[in-house]
Amino acid sequence: MNKTEKRVKELRDILDKLSNFNYTTSLIHWDLETGAPKEGIQKAATVLGFYSELTYNLLTDEKLIEHIDFLGKNLEELTEIDRKLVIETKKDIDRIKRIPVSEYKEYNELLSKSQAVWGEARAENDYEKFKPYLQKIVDYNKKYAEYKGYSGNPYNALIDDFEPGMTVKQLDIFFEGLRKELVPFIEKISNSKVEISNELLKKSYSVEKQKELSIFIAEYLGFDFDRGILKESLHPFTMGLNKHDVRITTHYHENFLQSALFGTIHEAGHAIYEQNIGDNIWKTVLGGGNSMGIHESQSRFYENLITRTKEFWKPIYSKLVDYFPENLKDTSLDEFYNAINMVEKSLIRIEADELTYSLHIMIRYEIEKGLINGEISLDDLPSIWNKKMKDYLGIMPKTDSEGVLQDVHWAAGLFGYFPSYALGSANASQIMNSLEKVLDVKKTLENQELDKIKGFLEEKIHKYGRLKDPNEIMLIATGEEPNSKYYTNYLIKKYSKIYNIE
Amino acid sequence: MNKTEKRVKELRDILDKLSNFNYTTSLIHWDLETGAPKEGIQKAATVLGFYSELTYNLLTDEKLIEHIDFLGKNLEELTEIDRKLVIETKKDIDRIKRIPVSEYKEYNELLSKSQAVWGEARAENDYEKFKPYLQKIVDYNKKYAEYKGYSGNPYNALIDDFEPGMTVKQLDIFFEGLRKELVPFIEKISNSKVEISNELLKKSYSVEKQKELSIFIAEYLGFDFDRGILKESLHPFTMGLNKHDVRITTHYHENFLQSALFGTIHEAGHAIYEQNIGDNIWKTVLGGGNSMGIHESQSRFYENLITRTKEFWKPIYSKLVDYFPENLKDTSLDEFYNAINMVEKSLIRIEADELTYSLHIMIRYEIEKGLINGEISLDDLPSIWNKKMKDYLGIMPKTDSEGVLQDVHWAAGLFGYFPSYALGSANASQIMNSLEKVLDVKKTLENQELDKIKGFLEEKIHKYGRLKDPNEIMLIATGEEPNSKYYTNYLIKKYSKIYNIE
Repeated sequence: MNKTEKRVKELRDILDKLSNFNYTTSLIHWDLETGAPKEGIQKAATVLGFYSELTYNLLTDEKLIEHIDFLGKNLEELTEIDRKLVIETKKDIDRIKRIPVSEYKEYNELLSKSQAVWGEARAENDYEKFKPYLQKIVDYNKKYAEYKGYSGNPYNALIDDFEPGMTVKQLDIFFEGLRKELVPFIEKISNSKVEISNELLKKSYSVEKQKELSIFIAEYLGFDFDRGILKESLHPFTMGLNKHDVRITTHYHENFLQSALFGTIHEAGHAIYEQNIGDNIWKTVLGGGNSMGIHESQSRFYENLITRTKEFWKPIYSKLVDYFPENLKDTSLDEFYNAINMVEKSLIRIEADELTYSLHIMIRYEIEKGLINGEISLDDLPSIWNKKMKDYLGIMPKTDSEGVLQDVHWAAGLFGYFPSYALGSANASQIMNSLEKVLDVKKTLENQELDKIKGFLEEKIHKYGRLKDPNEIMLIATGEEPNSKYYTNYLIKKYSKIYNIE
Repeated sequence: MNKTEKRVKELRDILDKLSNFNYTTSLIHWDLETGAPKEGIQKAATVLGFYSELTYNLLTDEKLIEHIDFLGKNLEELTEIDRKLVIETKKDIDRIKRIPVSEYKEYNELLSKSQAVWGEARAENDYEKFKPYLQKIVDYNKKYAEYKGYSGNPYNALIDDFEPGMTVKQLDIFFEGLRKELVPFIEKISNSKVEISNELLKKSYSVEKQKELSIFIAEYLGFDFDRGILKESLHPFTMGLNKHDVRITTHYHENFLQSALFGTIHEAGHAIYEQNIGDNIWKTVLGGGNSMGIHESQSRFYENLITRTKEFWKPIYSKLVDYFPENLKDTSLDEFYNAINMVEKSLIRIEADELTYSLHIMIRYEIEKGLINGEISLDDLPSIWNKKMKDYLGIMPKTDSEGVLQDVHWAAGLFGYFPSYALGSANASQIMNSLEKVLDVKKTLENQELDKIKGFLEEKIHKYGRLKDPNEIMLIATGEEPNSKYYTNYLIKKYSKIYNIE
């Protein structure tokens, strides 16, 4: 074993430890969200703090830094995987090493508590209960941006964690593009004479039957239940422990079929990604999904481009009716298709339709930018939220629970994450455009050959995990850098047809 | 801070780390038994091995051993809690330090796999599938006995882990006592003219309703759902992470009400114990249940001495009928009482009645002794099991699933554990005898004052956790050392009445 090989081995041993700690904290979070008793948080918070300290210590250990310095100067001697391990670990080290350990530990303990408090605050419609926690989280993220460093806007430091290299400047252009294309288009739809209702989705749908349907649909799309489970939580999410253990949740509403159904599909999209990481990297820290913009492209791809089509439902629509014969027996596939594609200016992001969705993201993007730059204070947050809803969507939340308290993200410390939802939708359209060049997608769906679609995504995207950069992935999958034109084109084409717009 | 105080602080810091690792491995086991996807074991086994190595390293660290040596010589300077921490940690160190780390780690990885294999082998009635895993577990336990050291029988080394100080010699006497009193008594019952049937418990009982009933009963007994949860697993168990997070499982059989109902009650008994550990010790490694014989006394206490009485059911029997009106509306409380106390020579330990139960334990005790002493080979194990069943209970399993594969214990490496079930039952009777001196138990049950009973147990037993030795606990609770006379007296008195034996 030469010097480089020895360093690589030692680096990999350290990264294996990190991977074990990551597994542990993910499992504790999963447990807190899906099973743990209320008071269990007392010890869980301590344990999470403990592991964040161990992780911090590992990442700031001089031995590791020496390995990374040495190997960073000898990248050409390494395999592609080891090279990427060195580069990504260096980023992790740079991200963390300037944060004092006590602050880092305290913050992680705070996050485990704040999510429970957010859950209560949302249930009780009590923004004030959550505010002191949110204040601490915002303060930490401002400090974190300073520790990490940035050029231009401090918010860039946070965006970069989820979308490497992305900046406020680029996002301002991105959202401006969407606004210019979509806002007038949504206005046209408001004035359309075509009236679409989704009342049929709001009948009473047995939660037990919805659970069966969720399992059926997840499996039909390609989710492997030997390597994953589906449970319930307040807010749907995916927890990929590794490719052999990918967990998703959904949330059932008896009086809104769409919510759990498309929630499950969305998370299944994330999960199918994680279940199909390459066997060459699954045990390493590269063995998870790529940037959030790539991850979200997979969930949106299934949620919108696959399952909000007539062709997807055509072969299984009668099966859907069989789950809920009393509700659906007199509903045609065309009516169902229109109902799941109804455009409506609504309050809750995760229940928003495909077209207005990015406006919800735009609001969060602007607020986050303002909070991190100190332009928005938490005292004003609910009213600013409500005003933006009014300005962009023309509607006002009646309570904070259906307003500023609706998402878990801020309680979980996820600042800089929201923009990726919109980027992901744009990427999904670009990927679909590319898939259509090699496959008759409509026919494939009618023939129930979902495996072919999964195979394409696995080959072009999934198998790489974090081995490539997001831009490289998009180049491999589509031959182009990410851009928003496929997204706006797709939306305008699809909804012009549904709403009969010239 | 003087030298001793400094040592104590450092010792406590190390024990906190151990406590965090224990929390982690317990949670992973909980997850594997109750939620994880099948393939999740791939990574989970690695992670468990990793933590067993970290635990090993902590317990064999020279610094810790120095602290323990120093403090062990200055016990009189310490508080009662710190004194006990030192004594118990010394035992843990002695137990582990002679085992080579690689063997220890390998064994823990083996255990996480073997439990999954056991589950499959039981489902498929395939002893041969489980045998190679069991062989490795037995081999390890034999080696472990040698590493740990023992006087007399090697099996003593294993018993001592669950019942400190207990020996084969004492257990031979204990079981001989039970055999002498109970075998002829059970014979009398077989010849009794009183015919009792439990057919009414074998009607179709909706699993959904059974789940509701389980929650109701656990809560009624005093299980706190803010600090615990109830789920399903193949085999009921309790996982006490700490007093604020105590988890129990049960297993529902549609056609046997008794199984899940008394399974829940049994585990609730364990859980109420763990939920009522003193606040002064809950964060330390003393903050769990005492020896298995004490722990099992609490579960058996609730399962048999509290809930297999007429007085317990009297105030809530109509509620029970309301859960299953079609099955129970024509059944009187007397008939129900007889049904849940029917004596029957049966195959499955966890479904055995109170009276024949200890014979099931005796079989396991004799087999474990034989395996560890090399007198029984695994090739012969199923036939030896079956022969003992025939000899003691007069019945033969038709399959290994209802024979030697029925319990998870050996797959989990728990050799030396079974005897505590019988000791626990004996302790429970002794504790009840003591409770009856200060409380009219029958009246208390009729008045639905379960809190009074829980209060007695908390005050005399629960609050001490591991702060006292098992013998001390029994002295505090009953004024006597543990003995079997209250147990046999109680059984003979109770069942003589039911079966009209002179």
